[in-house]
Amino acid sequence: MRFLIPLISSGRNRVASRFLNALSAKPQRSTLPSLFNSQPPSMAASEESLRKALAEKLSAVESQGNAVRALKAAKASKPEIDAAIEALNNLKLEKSSIEKQLQSAVSGGDGDGALSREAFRQAAVNTLERRLFYIPSFKIYRGVAGLYDYGPPGCAVKSNVLAFWRQHFVLEENMLEVDCPCVTPEVVLKASGHVEKFTDLMVKDEKTGTCYRADHLLKDFCNEKLQKDLTISAEKAAELKHVLATLDDLSPEALGAKIKEYGITAPDTKNPLSDPYPFNLMFQTSIGPSGLSPGYMRPETAQGIFVNFKDLYYYNGNKLPFAAAQIGQAFRNEISPRQGLLRVREFTLAEIEHFVDPEDKSHPKYPEVADLEFLMFPREEQMSGQSAKKTRLGDAVSNGIVNNETLGYFIGRVYLFLTRLGIDKDRLRFRQHLANEMAHYAADCWDAEIESSYGWVECVGIADRSAYDLRAHSEKSSVPLVAAEKFSEPREVEKLVIAPVKKELGLAFKGNQKNVVEALEAMNEKEALEMKAALESKGEVEFYVCTLGKNVPIKKNMVSISKEKKKEHQRVFTPSVIEPSFGIGRIIYCLFEHSFYTRPSKAGDEQLNVFRFPPLVAPIKCTVFPLVQNQQYEEVAKVISKSLTAVGISHKIDITGTSIGKRYARTDELGVPFAITVDSTTDVTIRERDSKLQVRVGVEEAASVVKSVTDGHRTWEDVWEKFPHHTSGSADD
Amino acid sequence: MRFLIPLISSGRNRVASRFLNALSAKPQRSTLPSLFNSQPPSMAASEESLRKALAEKLSAVESQGNAVRALKAAKASKPEIDAAIEALNNLKLEKSSIEKQLQSAVSGGDGDGALSREAFRQAAVNTLERRLFYIPSFKIYRGVAGLYDYGPPGCAVKSNVLAFWRQHFVLEENMLEVDCPCVTPEVVLKASGHVEKFTDLMVKDEKTGTCYRADHLLKDFCNEKLQKDLTISAEKAAELKHVLATLDDLSPEALGAKIKEYGITAPDTKNPLSDPYPFNLMFQTSIGPSGLSPGYMRPETAQGIFVNFKDLYYYNGNKLPFAAAQIGQAFRNEISPRQGLLRVREFTLAEIEHFVDPEDKSHPKYPEVADLEFLMFPREEQMSGQSAKKTRLGDAVSNGIVNNETLGYFIGRVYLFLTRLGIDKDRLRFRQHLANEMAHYAADCWDAEIESSYGWVECVGIADRSAYDLRAHSEKSSVPLVAAEKFSEPREVEKLVIAPVKKELGLAFKGNQKNVVEALEAMNEKEALEMKAALESKGEVEFYVCTLGKNVPIKKNMVSISKEKKKEHQRVFTPSVIEPSFGIGRIIYCLFEHSFYTRPSKAGDEQLNVFRFPPLVAPIKCTVFPLVQNQQYEEVAKVISKSLTAVGISHKIDITGTSIGKRYARTDELGVPFAITVDSTTDVTIRERDSKLQVRVGVEEAASVVKSVTDGHRTWEDVWEKFPHHTSGSADD
Repeated sequence: MRFLIPLISSGRNRVASRFLNALSAKPQRSTLPSLFNSQPPSMAASEESLRKALAEKLSAVESQGNAVRALKAAKASKPEIDAAIEALNNLKLEKSSIEKQLQSAVSGGDGDGALSREAFRQAAVNTLERRLFYIPSFKIYRGVAGLYDYGPPGCAVKSNVLAFWRQHFVLEENMLEVDCPCVTPEVVLKASGHVEKFTDLMVKDEKTGTCYRADHLLKDFCNEKLQKDLTISAEKAAELKHVLATLDDLSPEALGAKIKEYGITAPDTKNPLSDPYPFNLMFQTSIGPSGLSPGYMRPETAQGIFVNFKDLYYYNGNKLPFAAAQIGQAFRNEISPRQGLLRVREFTLAEIEHFVDPEDKSHPKYPEVADLEFLMFPREEQMSGQSAKKTRLGDAVSNGIVNNETLGYFIGRVYLFLTRLGIDKDRLRFRQHLANEMAHYAADCWDAEIESSYGWVECVGIADRSAYDLRAHSEKSSVPLVAAEKFSEPREVEKLVIAPVKKELGLAFKGNQKNVVEALEAMNEKEALEMKAALESKGEVEFYVCTLGKNVPIKKNMVSISKEKKKEHQRVFTPSVIEPSFGIGRIIYCLFEHSFYTRPSKAGDEQLNVFRFPPLVAPIKCTVFPLVQNQQYEEVAKVISKSLTAVGISHKIDITGTSIGKRYARTDELGVPFAITVDSTTDVTIRERDSKLQVRVGVEEAASVVKSVTDGHRTWEDVWEKFPHHTSGSADD
Repeated sequence: MRFLIPLISSGRNRVASRFLNALSAKPQRSTLPSLFNSQPPSMAASEESLRKALAEKLSAVESQGNAVRALKAAKASKPEIDAAIEALNNLKLEKSSIEKQLQSAVSGGDGDGALSREAFRQAAVNTLERRLFYIPSFKIYRGVAGLYDYGPPGCAVKSNVLAFWRQHFVLEENMLEVDCPCVTPEVVLKASGHVEKFTDLMVKDEKTGTCYRADHLLKDFCNEKLQKDLTISAEKAAELKHVLATLDDLSPEALGAKIKEYGITAPDTKNPLSDPYPFNLMFQTSIGPSGLSPGYMRPETAQGIFVNFKDLYYYNGNKLPFAAAQIGQAFRNEISPRQGLLRVREFTLAEIEHFVDPEDKSHPKYPEVADLEFLMFPREEQMSGQSAKKTRLGDAVSNGIVNNETLGYFIGRVYLFLTRLGIDKDRLRFRQHLANEMAHYAADCWDAEIESSYGWVECVGIADRSAYDLRAHSEKSSVPLVAAEKFSEPREVEKLVIAPVKKELGLAFKGNQKNVVEALEAMNEKEALEMKAALESKGEVEFYVCTLGKNVPIKKNMVSISKEKKKEHQRVFTPSVIEPSFGIGRIIYCLFEHSFYTRPSKAGDEQLNVFRFPPLVAPIKCTVFPLVQNQQYEEVAKVISKSLTAVGISHKIDITGTSIGKRYARTDELGVPFAITVDSTTDVTIRERDSKLQVRVGVEEAASVVKSVTDGHRTWEDVWEKFPHHTSGSADD
């Protein structure tokens, strides 16, 4: 049952939830999608009743065992004893049967599925590492957890993905691309909140000092207990599930208490653990030689755009909306990296900050995506235990499920981007954040999640972050990061003016003066007018200052409140930002999994690996093989190679004497979509990777045929229809 | 005089020399090109004689002044006193004249040139920053020295430069591109030598703690003295020049002594300075939560390739030669960043490691570049005070000036790369490292230097680094990083076998055993055979162990020496590496300067800025302007825009009502090579940026014409010849 994956592996799913915070850079760690709530009630009920039935059966087995022993001790008759033993055996059989059912229920009815996912991943990852798509970094020095190198084919895939991203987003939408440094001074990340809040809770082995993520230990404990210990009571199981569902809400103290309560110890040594404490996930360093200027390796690329808002707005002719974009490295000093490319310490992000007038979030190109249909998983349906459903994007926007057109437009564009890369549309869903997952300032947030052998993985976050980031940097830097709408003619507006008289307030409140001033200025119109009336009638009022937590007496000479008419020529406001943020490594890993399959060799004696990359992302588009080692054929191969270079198709010649079948297998494993085999001097065959079908094409035409299919100007089916088929059956072996 | 720039600004030139070490990652900081030596003798002589003449004249002025005073005191006759005063005035005039000549000589006869270079740079940099090609990072927080953002046009130029680099090197040569992390564990950078030796010498203001680069302070002092203080003696001037020339050879102690001797104090406060001490230039951090795994932000990308040699060699079918390449960020915590984009704390490197059999450094594609002619500046000609000369690359290789064909091939390819980007070939030279500049293991090294307003800037280093890097990592990791040449049939070889008997040596030498063993094993064949003979005849020999600095007695039972015949099936060796290393930011900055010019507006009332980028690097290839605001024209503009998108030409529509002249000026400033102006519904004009010439082309044809010129399939001259000319004179204003 596919749906069960996120339920059973709610632990896994936190990868997504945490990464989200990374992607959208928001240290405001939000709570987990409450997957516990979204479990279909029937399923939970069945597990609960099975646990109860098992407990009853266990106690029945025990009583019957006692009964048998009692009969034996009392030297009862053989038929009597035999009957009791048979009853005991029947009870044991029933117990086993319930155990099996329960085992199946807790592993999502999918025990075999989990195994085969594991096997699939092993096969894919083996191929990926062996062919150097990616490998652990610094291998000769036994590596560093969470750091990976892309080898030649992986590097080519990555650069194709980034080139397409630039084409699909930056060029198509005229975005302003920028390129900012990774080294970032502390003040910037204080303003953004990362210095204070970008943390995970950690515990230490009290003897060895080894560090663990506190929530991981608790999560692993609960999952293990739930899946492997069938004897726990239904109540206990419910409690553990509740812990899993609320894991990200737990305070350090509550997390520590649970670890103590469950007797969790260090996994490797069984030593006791320290109390949990926050560990900041940024790599810290020092800028310049003095050692006095702390800096960090950026945890996201977005801040580089926010701090440049003023210049970019000017560059755009002081007009909204506009989008800025950045591709670059980001860093996160994970406590315990896991799951290969999915949780790493350095990764490539591609981020867009689309700045828009908060009063007008329409998008001129929205109609181009409104008719797209794909899996959407809105908040309500997660809460009510339903699953993601195919939905027309336009309906989701017009029903108010997606907050606004611009957000909807980007959801649609992300869908097109991912599926064109080769992500399977049936294993891609857009999941809305639950209310408790979102930062308080966010208007709405959707994640593009891709299903992999690890479960659903958040790969793109698309958030309407309102004016939060620009306001934070405005405050910290005292540089106003605002936009203005010029009126075609001035407008007369009545404005409330609250003018605290600082001198009088200073005399009255001394050190608290600032708090009182701020509280006065923060009054809304109604409060202010009430105070004005009260001061005029009574001369003094009691006024509650929340930052002081008490009332203070305000006298008439301490504040002037009035309404004034003003002519305004423009409206000045802080723009909202809509932020699509792409974890490139995660997308690439999911793409690897969605592209990978095996098929038997022709002789049937081995399984061959294939990546079905679309030409757009394939590391090499085409290979050229002389069928046998022969100078004439090699000459032809070189001529074709030159024409391929001339039309810009990346390719490789393989003139080794290896059998053509082996050469095909070798390039299928790299996901090369087309192979040109030279077996005459006048025409050649072109083989398509997945169908293994071959056509015959003249030597002069070969390059242009491959180019047209690679560029998407025609399909392989068109080619198959147009050209004579090559039927030499033995080519592939 | 152009040649004088590097002489006069030998200080400046160190940028290059230091960067070289960064590029080629080699902590072995080598000494400076001894520019002092390469100063033409006539020039030095003239300066020296002028200093002497000035000293004589100064003393003549003094004596004559005394004489005048004496005459006055003695109440001499008026004619007598007047004559003496006239003589004094003449002497003063002569002194002034010599001062002027000397001033001119020390500023390279080029005082005005320096001024105009400064003005040129100001104009270029103002335009670059105003149009957001690049800007200081984190400006709203008052920035961080040495960190820059590329704004939209700069980012586009950078991405075009990198795309062309990938095309020109990686694709054309089938290089293996990899992508490794920036975060690097300490062990890797210990092996490479960076942890120990990648340092600059620093001094601190003893009161405020402000840090300075020690060599910069000494260099600035010497330059200032030489250029501004005309009264120093010829001997003193020679001494200061010698200090400048040997600056990089000075030990911390010698540097400190000079600073004391010259009384150099902190520039801002005049406080005394600390002794110089080494400061490591790597940004340090800590990997993982324990705080026990030090790491650094990589100072170069090359190490990521070296540690992967084994896998890459396997990927290449265990065949040499092959090249791996990497583009990525590198980091250097400069003590005092200077000169804008030329000396920064984070920068993009593009590096190639070409692995080759040390016994065969030929290159199959070498003939393709052998006939190229460009400015080369070999070691000998620098030493003998000549200047760079136009040289045929093939001659430099066949004369042995360039060490080998592969090195020559890369020099040629770098020349083609830089000039195709738009670097002026007359301001590009290849300078060979002097013997004292090169690391001891390097076979040969050439820098591509580009002349800018800062002087000659090293932008690419091309070094034959022999087997140094692979050996260093083999030793540290104990993983053999070697290649093998398989023999077609086994070869019989006689091999010397030296087998120290460790037990006996241990008994005899205790703690020194290891030194003795190593010294024995390091004997060459002749030494070993002599020892064998001596041991057989005398039973004991004296043997010098250099690591102990003394002779030790070796007895017969301590070592066995023999010659054995062996059959070998392969030759195993550590490959040599030839490393072209590109500082992308420096290349881009020089490209900006070489592309920038100003021209008067048509009305002649202002200077307009232009970047003459070739289409290859221009941030946008084309603009589309409706001549006036009008729906029909806008429709046509949109149609053309669609066709441009279809053929992949990046462009922009500008439908503002601004005058067409202003719109041209605006895009000239961004270096956009072509503008399509819509002034009818049937045909349009295409304007070329530098000539300002315009042709008339049909609406349907416009996109394909721009594409063909942009792709280099035809020149603007071809277009000018083929299409009718547009002659409406007023368009540009």
